[in-house]
Amino acid sequence: MGIEYYHVMQRAKDLDATIRFYELLGLTERRRYDSEAGRFTNVFMSPDGSADGNIELTHNWDDDPGLPSDSRHFGHIAFIVDDIYGLCQHLMDNGVTINRPPRDGYMAFVRSPDNISIELLQKGDALPAQEPWASMGNTGHW
Amino acid sequence: MGIEYYHVMQRAKDLDATIRFYELLGLTERRRYDSEAGRFTNVFMSPDGSADGNIELTHNWDDDPGLPSDSRHFGHIAFIVDDIYGLCQHLMDNGVTINRPPRDGYMAFVRSPDNISIELLQKGDALPAQEPWASMGNTGHW
Repeated sequence: MGIEYYHVMQRAKDLDATIRFYELLGLTERRRYDSEAGRFTNVFMSPDGSADGNIELTHNWDDDPGLPSDSRHFGHIAFIVDDIYGLCQHLMDNGVTINRPPRDGYMAFVRSPDNISIELLQKGDALPAQEPWASMGNTGHW
Repeated sequence: MGIEYYHVMQRAKDLDATIRFYELLGLTERRRYDSEAGRFTNVFMSPDGSADGNIELTHNWDDDPGLPSDSRHFGHIAFIVDDIYGLCQHLMDNGVTINRPPRDGYMAFVRSPDNISIELLQKGDALPAQEPWASMGNTGHW
């Protein structure tokens, strides 16, 4: 069950100020995704020489009232995995709650013992929908 | 002023439980550092094929009472930089507070606009001590 480290995500209240900050450090915006449906923008930034964006910024258009005073400013640690169903089963068998099951064969979220949000993404294309995941509801938030 | 992405750090209340969680994901402990003076343990874990530890766990021996209910469970995002003095000057010139100046020519901490703690580490050996950094006090915490 292969796994690769992918990115760290932080929520940004002021997207321009945050991009400027990481630019001061020497990072560059590599790609951007605006979601009209989700009303958010994702920006990926990385130093030169990195294969992809190491820092994912998430800016919610309708504001994150908790920012920057609560812990939602830190988002998650992301991994890319070879078999998201196999890994989620392995985690469940060992007592880990699958907060966001991989209903879509692509994305799941769990929490570390310290409540750190961990994102798991299927490598390549999404897997075909499969039970018990397809009909499994969410548990808590992440 | 070169910069490389280095690691993400999280504080772990129960170190064994946290190592076990990341092992379930497929990560392996790569190195460990016990500090008798600082009364903490750092453990670096990464997936196979990673050059070094992508996740740094910090376990404080005398407990982190805030864990896991407050945001101190997320630590920082770390970068390795070619010239820590030059970068800190560049940040200061652009209005960024150097919370932990590089008095030792090796390590500095700043905060992003969302209060994310950013660690900067000098590449290779520490630089010789140099003003104004050597006598600059800390500002706030990080």
